[in-house]
This record gives sequence, structure tokens and C-alpha cells, in this order.
Amino acid sequence: MAGNSFGKIFKLTTFGESHGEAIGGIIEGCPPNVALDFQKIQYELQRRKPGQSNLVSQRKENDVVIFLSGIFEGKTTGTPIGFMIENEDQKSKDYSHIQDAFRPSHADFTYQKKYGIRDYRGGGRSSARETACRVVAGAIAKQILSNIEINAFVSSVGSIYINKPYQDLDFNKIESNAVRCPDDETAQKMESLIKEIKKEGDTIGGTITCVVKNVPIGLGEPVFDKLHADLGKAMLSINAVKGFEIGSGFCGTQMKGSEHNDIFNTDGTTKSNLSGGIQGGISNGMDIYFRVAFKPVATIMKSQESIDNNGNAITVEGKGRHDACVVPRAVPIVEAMAALVLVDNYLLNKIYSNGTSC
Amino acid sequence: MAGNSFGKIFKLTTFGESHGEAIGGIIEGCPPNVALDFQKIQYELQRRKPGQSNLVSQRKENDVVIFLSGIFEGKTTGTPIGFMIENEDQKSKDYSHIQDAFRPSHADFTYQKKYGIRDYRGGGRSSARETACRVVAGAIAKQILSNIEINAFVSSVGSIYINKPYQDLDFNKIESNAVRCPDDETAQKMESLIKEIKKEGDTIGGTITCVVKNVPIGLGEPVFDKLHADLGKAMLSINAVKGFEIGSGFCGTQMKGSEHNDIFNTDGTTKSNLSGGIQGGISNGMDIYFRVAFKPVATIMKSQESIDNNGNAITVEGKGRHDACVVPRAVPIVEAMAALVLVDNYLLNKIYSNGTSC
Amino acid sequence: MAGNSFGKIFKLTTFGESHGEAIGGIIEGCPPNVALDFQKIQYELQRRKPGQSNLVSQRKENDVVIFLSGIFEGKTTGTPIGFMIENEDQKSKDYSHIQDAFRPSHADFTYQKKYGIRDYRGGGRSSARETACRVVAGAIAKQILSNIEINAFVSSVGSIYINKPYQDLDFNKIESNAVRCPDDETAQKMESLIKEIKKEGDTIGGTITCVVKNVPIGLGEPVFDKLHADLGKAMLSINAVKGFEIGSGFCGTQMKGSEHNDIFNTDGTTKSNLSGGIQGGISNGMDIYFRVAFKPVATIMKSQESIDNNGNAITVEGKGRHDACVVPRAVPIVEAMAALVLVDNYLLNKIYSNGTSC
Amino acid sequence: MAGNSFGKIFKLTTFGESHGEAIGGIIEGCPPNVALDFQKIQYELQRRKPGQSNLVSQRKENDVVIFLSGIFEGKTTGTPIGFMIENEDQKSKDYSHIQDAFRPSHADFTYQKKYGIRDYRGGGRSSARETACRVVAGAIAKQILSNIEINAFVSSVGSIYINKPYQDLDFNKIESNAVRCPDDETAQKMESLIKEIKKEGDTIGGTITCVVKNVPIGLGEPVFDKLHADLGKAMLSINAVKGFEIGSGFCGTQMKGSEHNDIFNTDGTTKSNLSGGIQGGISNGMDIYFRVAFKPVATIMKSQESIDNNGNAITVEGKGRHDACVVPRAVPIVEAMAALVLVDNYLLNKIYSNGTSC
Repeated sequence: MAGNSFGKIFKLTTFGESHGEAIGGIIEGCPPNVALDFQKIQYELQRRKPGQSNLVSQRKENDVVIFLSGIFEGKTTGTPIGFMIENEDQKSKDYSHIQDAFRPSHADFTYQKKYGIRDYRGGGRSSARETACRVVAGAIAKQILSNIEINAFVSSVGSIYINKPYQDLDFNKIESNAVRCPDDETAQKMESLIKEIKKEGDTIGGTITCVVKNVPIGLGEPVFDKLHADLGKAMLSINAVKGFEIGSGFCGTQMKGSEHNDIFNTDGTTKSNLSGGIQGGISNGMDIYFRVAFKPVATIMKSQESIDNNGNAITVEGKGRHDACVVPRAVPIVEAMAALVLVDNYLLNKIYSNGTSC
Repeated sequence: MAGNSFGKIFKLTTFGESHGEAIGGIIEGCPPNVALDFQKIQYELQRRKPGQSNLVSQRKENDVVIFLSGIFEGKTTGTPIGFMIENEDQKSKDYSHIQDAFRPSHADFTYQKKYGIRDYRGGGRSSARETACRVVAGAIAKQILSNIEINAFVSSVGSIYINKPYQDLDFNKIESNAVRCPDDETAQKMESLIKEIKKEGDTIGGTITCVVKNVPIGLGEPVFDKLHADLGKAMLSINAVKGFEIGSGFCGTQMKGSEHNDIFNTDGTTKSNLSGGIQGGISNGMDIYFRVAFKPVATIMKSQESIDNNGNAITVEGKGRHDACVVPRAVPIVEAMAALVLVDNYLLNKIYSNGTSC
Repeated sequence: MAGNSFGKIFKLTTFGESHGEAIGGIIEGCPPNVALDFQKIQYELQRRKPGQSNLVSQRKENDVVIFLSGIFEGKTTGTPIGFMIENEDQKSKDYSHIQDAFRPSHADFTYQKKYGIRDYRGGGRSSARETACRVVAGAIAKQILSNIEINAFVSSVGSIYINKPYQDLDFNKIESNAVRCPDDETAQKMESLIKEIKKEGDTIGGTITCVVKNVPIGLGEPVFDKLHADLGKAMLSINAVKGFEIGSGFCGTQMKGSEHNDIFNTDGTTKSNLSGGIQGGISNGMDIYFRVAFKPVATIMKSQESIDNNGNAITVEGKGRHDACVVPRAVPIVEAMAALVLVDNYLLNKIYSNGTSC
Repeated sequence: MAGNSFGKIFKLTTFGESHGEAIGGIIEGCPPNVALDFQKIQYELQRRKPGQSNLVSQRKENDVVIFLSGIFEGKTTGTPIGFMIENEDQKSKDYSHIQDAFRPSHADFTYQKKYGIRDYRGGGRSSARETACRVVAGAIAKQILSNIEINAFVSSVGSIYINKPYQDLDFNKIESNAVRCPDDETAQKMESLIKEIKKEGDTIGGTITCVVKNVPIGLGEPVFDKLHADLGKAMLSINAVKGFEIGSGFCGTQMKGSEHNDIFNTDGTTKSNLSGGIQGGISNGMDIYFRVAFKPVATIMKSQESIDNNGNAITVEGKGRHDACVVPRAVPIVEAMAALVLVDNYLLNKIYSNGTSC
């Protein structure tokens, strides 16, 4: 399996299955002399972890990150940061029923066909538990990008959505409710919907919007590694994501150029920002904002027809504690991936930031 | 500038500005002994090139690809394929008026700020002319993937869209009209709209849908390099793209798990395909289909307020021959990028395709 | 810090300082379904570890590798293999005397200047302890390359060297003595020399020769990634290595083409093998053999003049348990790095090993 | 074929066979705003090209580099620099006699076995002609590293060698004779030897020493990408190279630590420099010097036994104009590769060269 690394300069490589010994990772390219706030890192893990509210999975994972290297007397040394999170309270027996089963819209079938073997316990490598490692690295990235503000929030659950531009929202309210929606009224509706869906033993999709403020001008490498292409890949690599749009996104396809063009102010800022803070693949200093689509979680508590490894018809039914809606818990993951893209491009851009001859 | 390469195994690296000597590229990792059909490669370039119809830009670029290496007696040798396309008929004087200007929603401002210098002629490196190199490489990729069918088409222009599932369309009709829309009636409406927009000196956005059939099971590397994450990045790296969705995409966020899950047939195919042919980041053998959002072209024939390098207020107005709607010409680019992602993952997957010990 | 990864397909990324919590790594790209022999892995670690004999460092590190992921029911699953080795018995106080000191010919000075901070305990990231991770990955690589025989041995210590071609040596004797020299008589001389040097509180350099048999024809990527260039980089990345030569090496520079050319037998083998098993950067099926130069260990038990962080003249003297000659312990490291290069090129070569169209 | 790229930030990718249309390359990551001296670039190509003296190959290649992109009004723009060198005067018929032949110690056999096809004309991709592209990129790298002095010279031909430390040599004399040896007396002996060897229709090996002055402290990434490991790989990737040693090299293996350690002066320089300017993989500001071993050229004018594609015994004999000794022409190639390694590590190091938070 390739593809366990993310980033060019600030590079995260992860390992781990949901029910193995541990998950973890290595962060390469972290600048030296960064005094880390470990509570902030652990706080981000708490935001992601199951069992925070009755809306999300009730699995109790402690998710305590243990740093193994790269930090000396509280500061980064520039050497790789190794870390791990032990797997606990996993109740492996819960998963024996899926040993031979291919659960619908999971990765069981494709892993088995690709590798001829799989750790079937709880999804193994394909489990969203892997994203905890992204949150650790993202929390460090955020500390390096101390002037940049990254705020993600749930903008829709099912067909309930925030009917306001993001400029009218108070991001301080994101953590004030269990769905991580900064609009109180909408948040309540979302909560009710998720509870209802949960009662049915079903799940529901949703979207997350992310807004990044104070991005320096000049981040992003044009052509194949445009900043929004990196962001898009980052988001699409998160489990259950099916779509990404930046700035005007799909709505912009219905507009005319004369409506869509962002006219400059004399200071280089723009009057509108349909570009979403990126032009020609490079940040222009305006807010970067994008939206991420999450499909409904595949594990439902209802009985479903399926097949096993041998093509026999079987019936599967979700057991244990699963999310009825994943988007509230995915908010810190979206922020983490955004932070990883930005810190990587920020460091890469330093190569050209001052004199060029040696 | 980093980011001029695409792919891990079948790797395209490109160079070139719109008004320099030439654009071109190097393809690494092409398998040996592939007998190339050069007419098919040139045909794809013709599809992309300006001046094909009165709907698109009337610049006459010959866009003849010249191969410089990697091919011997008509067959690939496995060595890198160097190629170039000379820049002709560029009327450089057309662009002198933008030497100091920052055109709204172009890359002029961000390139100038990032690099402190730019080839201002026609957008330079940020010009969509660069995509011709992608089409060359994609055309070769298609020949390697001879059993895979990749069909992209225009699914909407402005608010006019095809109101049918793709299964009801005849892809043989894609090339039958100037907008590359396989639904005759919709195509006519799109053409009328584009002509109207063009008369206004304005531009309009649109979407392209791409359907890939006969994909082998097992392509894609889970975690960060999920197959749809690679596809998303590929599409978002194309000029003017603001969004990407695969399978159920943004619509899927409004669905329940019980509606969205793709139930297996006993042969491993699925009854529905809301996953869009990819599960856990790996192809499952079903059709891969996705949709790409293009914003309206930024160059309009209307006068717009802007600023110059020194922050002075100026007025800019498009000159020369530009597309009123870019999506018809972007169809072969979308196909090319899809082919590059697939051939790369196909070759990467061969590493694990048979016995493992040496 | 970049550069903590090795390999393109079978890719090892490592972390860890000599006196941090643990060292460890992630192996990406290991094929699935390999039944691992864990004793063989641990055996290689024992070969590398300090305290094996009175010739080498007497530090007692247990060096037990703990696998955290990528293995299920004793077999690799294809997912990344995370592993760690805890740091024990490190007596951190031993190193307080070097907190501000720059030891001669160590990495203290360069790390401090490059990063502005360093974990000074025992060399931190620059310690050769890091090579234990290479040995773990190399031991897995060897199991994949089950038909390939990789044998390294000490070919010289100081000015004492084996005066025979490798073909006259019995590799089964390598582990029969503490210096890992398969020629008994030479081994005894080497042992005596090392003991003498140790008594003086000094250290001595040496060379390791490595012979690889049964390499398939076709491994290696010409131009920049020639197989011997990869091998050379691998060896030069080991602590204390100052030189690498393959086949005829430096001796070959004194030869004529008519003497040096390897004449073919009709079966494609060659009568001589001055090429060292690689032609044009690609393995030709003959034995690959090369020689690696190790400088004397920099830590000596004698008093030396030096400077501290502030440029003050100081005196330093080695304390604790250090190797008088590193080459006996470096034998498994050389083998491990050779195995990593070979498995990586073996897997990469599979891309082109059968039909090319899809 | 993989492996046609070199460098992480300043990245050269090359293409081309000796008898195809052209050879060329793409340089990514060149900083913007570098005013290039094109004559200096062409000068380096002249140094490498055949036919400079009666000692080396008499093929007349014009080797004029044509830049296709990345340069605007004489300055680099930061975008990729595409370039090519057309193949001329190649007398393809000269090579028809080797269509089915495997020449001893060439790459004919290994290419054929690996790829199942090869461009047999003049070695195709395996020809040393490819190194012209390295010289172009290296010449640009040298201009960026304007304060760093890179001087390579021929230090031995056959058994004739310069019997002086490099500090006693006047590098201004390197270009004063046809062998590029800065010691007049030794140069004359080398010339005589090469002429004699040439008369015999034979070839002879040699070594090149390279000295790099004024390297900033801090270049190089420890662990796998140590600066000397990068240099070693760079050199070993040049055709005909069989060995590399840095600083004390193979001689250092016979020394004691107390002799070998480089004692600091209070300003951080060292009294001796057996380390060769690199400690712990990072430059320490002292001269970097290393030695590269070249085997004798495989093409000789004498008749040799060999085999063809089908394993039939045949006789081959070199025709045309070949070097009797390659080292004089390899001097600019060694310098170019050294420059590529240094500029790459110089740019990479800028990431950490100033404040770290954003």
C-alpha cells in the first residue's frame, strides 16, 4: 500500500489499524524551536474522539497521544516527531461477525480483492480511526501557523443547512453545541434530525464549511499543485467525503464572468471573493473558504442484504456504537487537513521568500 | 515553482509559457513496447485547441506535438518521452496592454507577489495553454488503458443542464455538436446561450461529467492517495475548476445510509452505485463517474475596473480571441487527467498483482 | 529535517533519538501475505546491538522490536508496518558533560548551527542507534527476497585485510568470530588489533565487503537511479561511512578497457565480473559486490581539545561504553541497507514485468 | 523507466537518446529573478563535448542548448526551465552493426532484458550523451551558488596520479591542458599515456577529485539524505563511475580516531579536515572534497568476443570516434552534479533559515 504520507515539506506518514496495537505517525519537516502546547494537541483529539455527546458514537477511546521523539524540553528539535495512540476498549469480539462479510459501501470488498487479506476487525486500516493521527499533526501545524485562523463548522445535515453567509456567523459558537454548527437555531434542528435518524437505526450525511483567515499572499504552487487542488485532495482523502468546492464552487458555474470576477481594491484586496482566496492556484490574501460533502455513514443498525468472501448471500447489521452522523466529529479533521496543507505550502514558499544567491 | 509534475509511476512533468518558444513535457514511467497511434494523440490535441467552432476562442494554434525521445520505430522503449508543442501565431503585441495590469480573477497579482517577476504575455505559465501537454500525456495513457472507456461531456452551461442520468445518454454523440453535450436538445440550448453570452462580451461557467467504464477492481491507494482524492486533485488542478464531486457527491449528503448504501449482487457488483465506483479509496469495478465545476472565464470583452503593479486604479478590457465558455474545450482535458490518474494507479497496482517473493 | 525516508516503493521512514522515549519507523509498500519470521528479525537486531562481545560497546540495550500495525495473524496485510524499539538503560547522566560541548568529528556543531537546538544526550538523532530501525526493515526485506543471498563481512580493520578474493571465503564463518571476518587467520589479527586499540582508549577504522548472489536480471533504473547509485547512497547514509566502491572500484581506474570488459558466455553470464553485477545501472544476474569504508569512531577515551557552544576552549573525553571499532556491528546494517535497495528495485521492476495494456 | 529526475527542490528531469531527435530536460524549482549568463552555460557544454582535443572523441556535436521556457527578458521567472539540445552529425549507420549485438560491459544486454526493446543506436538512453543535460542544469546551479567555488580536476589516469595535496594545486591551471590536470608535469605524463593507449585501440580509467570551497554551514539533511550520501549518489549516477570517497575516504579506514578527529579552532573551523567538510551529514563550512573513480571506457577499437540477442557467439569491434580516456571530459559533469546537490540542499535549507511561525 502506498499513499500513507501527506505533504511535501511538513510531511505526515501514518500507520495503524483500528484494532491493532496502536495507530501513530511520523511528522517530518517540522521546524525546530517551536514550543509546543500539548494541551492544545490533546484538545483537538478530544474534539475528534467518539463518545463526546449522545449524537455521536459512544465508543470510549481515550485517544491519548504519546510523543516518542523530535521534542526536547518542550520544544521541537527539527528531527522527526514520532507519536502513537494506543488502541483501547476495542471489544474485538464485536467484529467477529464480519470476518467473512463484505459490508455494503464499506472497504471490505475492495481491500480483500486488492490485497487478498485484510484485518477485518472494525475496518482495520480503512477505519476512520486513522484520522486521529491527522488531527495530531494538524494540531502541531496550527501552532506553527499561529497567525492563521482555521475554523470549520457543520453547515448542513441532511437537508437542513445554515442559510447565511459565513461572514454573519460567530465562530466562537462552533463548540457551543454538539453538532458544531455556529447558528443556534439551525444547530437545534440538526440535533433533532440526528436523534431521529439514530432512533431509526439509520445515518445521515452532511457538509462542513471551512474558513481560513489571515493567509499570507503567495502560498501554493501553480499547475498541478495549486493550493486548492492540494486542499481538495486533502479533504477527499478523509473517509466518507464525496465532494469539495472552493469559493463560488458549483454555484459559480451558473454565473457570468462579469458577475464572478473579483474586482481589486487599490490595496490589492478584492471587493468580492468568489475566487475563495486563491487565484491561479496561489493564495491572494483573502479568506480561503471551501465546503466538503460527507455521505451518510455506511454502518447502519438496520438489517441489510450483502455477500460474503465466497459470494454467498448473507445479512449484515451494524453492532456496537456508531455515529448516526459523522460531520460533527469530522470538523476537527477538516481543520487538521487544512492546517497540514497550509503549513506545507507555507514552508515550501519560504524557499523563495528572500534573496536567491548563495 | 514546485508542482509541475503529476503522477507517481506514470509521471508527467511539464514546462512552458503561453508565449515562450514552446510548451512541452516529459513522460516518465511509460511501459515499453506500446505501439503508439500518433493520429489519436493529435486528435485529442485538436479537440482541445482553440478555434474549433464559433463557440470557442478563434486563436489558430496548430498545436502539433513533436516527440523527441522515448519512441523507437513507433514503439515506446520505456525511456522518458520528451515532447514539445511550438508556440505560433501568438501576436505578442496583443498583450502589451497588460504588462503592468492585474486583471481581475486572473493569476497576474498572485504570480507577481509570489515571484516578483512574471511573463505577462497571455498569462505566461498560468495560461490554460499548459493543458495541451496534459492532453498529450493523457492520450498516451488512454492507449495503455485500452480496455477502459473514459467519456467526459458537458453536463451544464450556466443554468442549462442535462436532466437525465448518464446511463440514458449516447456517448457517441459527444463529438456531434460544438458544445460536446450528448443530449441534442440540451446541446442546442447550450449553444444558444453561449452565443448570446458571447455577444454580450461576457462569459459563462459550466460543468463537465466524466464516466469511466471497465475499470479493474483494486486501483487506488487507501488513506491519503484514495483514487477519488487523486481524481479530485487532478481535476482541481485544471484552470478555472472550482469544484469536484464523485458518485452521489453533494446530493448524497442529504441521503440516509439505508438509501445510500450500495447493496451487493452475488457476483460482487452492486445494485446501485452511489459510491461512484470507488469504496475505501479503491476501485470496485463499477463505473467511476464524477462532476467538475468550471467558473466563467475571467477574460471578458467588457471594461472592468482594476489596478496595476503600483496599486493605481486602471481599466482593463479583454482583447483578442477568448472563449465565452471554456467547458466544451475542457472535455478532452478532463478525460486526459482522468486517464493519467488511472494509468498511474494501474501501474502502481501491478506491484502487488502477483507473487511476492523473489 | 528532511531525509528520514528511504526507498520509492518499499519505503522506510524512521524517527527517534538515542535517549528519547523510543526509536522506530514505518514501512510502507510491503507486499501483503508475507508470513513473517519474527525471530529472524530479532536475530538481526541482536547482531547489530552493543554488548555482543568485548570488542564492541558494552551498553546493554535490549533492542526488542514491537510491531504496532500492518501484520495480522502473522502475515503482512499490505498496510504500513509501524514499529518501535524502546530506549532503555541509557544512563542519561553520562551525557550531561557534553551539554554545551562540541565533540570533535561528531555532529554536535553542525546540528547546533543548522537547527539552533539539539538533543545533546548521546548524539540524539545523529546517534548510530537510529540504524536499528534500518535493521528491522532490512530483515523484513530479506524475507521478501527469499532467493537472494546477501552476505556482508569485515574485510579490513586498520591495515589488516583479507588477502583473498571473496570467492575463496566461506560465508558460513562470518558469525563464527567477534569481528565477523570469514577468514580465521585474518579475524584473529583483527581481534588482537582492536583489543590493543581499545586498551589505548583509541578507535580504528575498517571496511566491509558485501556480496549479493542470485539477483534477478533487470533491477535498477538507469540514469539517476542506477542500482549502484542507490546502493552507494544507502551505504554512505550509514554513520561513519566515507567511501563506497563497486566491482573493480578504485582499482579499476588503473585498468585498460581490454582488461576490464566482462566478456559474455553464450548464456548471458560473463566470464569475469569487474562490473560487479551491474551494467548501465541495471543488474545483469552476476554477483553484486561492493566495499564500504568506515572511518574510526570519533568518541575516544583520550582527552581532546575542543570548544563549547560559545567558542570557549574546553577539553572533552569519551565516557561510558563505546566501540573501539564499529565495523563488526555495522555488518548487519550494511546487509540491511543492501536488502532495502534490492527489495525496492525488485518491487519497482514488477511494474514492467508482464503485459502492459489494461 | 523511473529515475530520470534528480533533486528535491531544484529538480532536473531529463529525456533523450543519443540518436533520437534531441536530448533535453526540465529544471523545476529554480528561484526567480536570477539573471542568467548564457555564455557560461554554453561554455560548460563546450567543456563536456566530444572533439575538444585529440585525446578525446572526435565526434563533432554542436551541443547548443536551446531554452524553451522559464526565462523572460534574460531572467528566470521561477517557472520550469525547459531546454533541449538537438542531436546532429550522428551518422546513424555507424551503429547498424550493433543492432543485435550485446557489447561487453555496455548496457545493451541489461536494457534488452529489462525492457524487451532498446534503441540500439549508439547506446540510446544509456549513452553518456545524456550527461550534457546535467551540465546545462549544473551551469545554472553554479550561477545561483555564486559564492561557492566548485573545482574538479583529473587526479589520476591509469596509475599516473598527482602526488600532492589539493591545497598545493593551482586550480586556474585546470583548463590549461587537454587532460584537465592542474599539475603540469603529471598532466604531460597523463597525455602521453592516453595517446599511447589510444594507439593501441584501447582505453584507460582514471579518477577525478572535486573540491568545493565556501560552502555555508548547515547544508544537508541527516539520516538518509546526508550531504555526502547525496553527493555519492550523484557521482555514482554518472556513466562509468565505480567508486566514491569523501574526506579521508578509504585511507581513513586505516587511521585511529585520535589521528582522524578534526580538532576545532575557537571560531568553529577545524585544524584538520579529514571529515571532508561534512559532519553528521551536514556541511561544517570547511572545504568539501571527494574523489570519483571512472572505469576504462568499454568501447575499444580491438576485436572482442561477444554474443548477440539470440545467444550466438559474435565478434564486436568499436567503430567511429570514441574516447580513449573519459575523465578529462567528465570533469564538467562532476562539477555539474556537485552543483546540483549543493543548490538543492541550499534551497531546502532556506526553509529553516529564519523565523518559524506564520
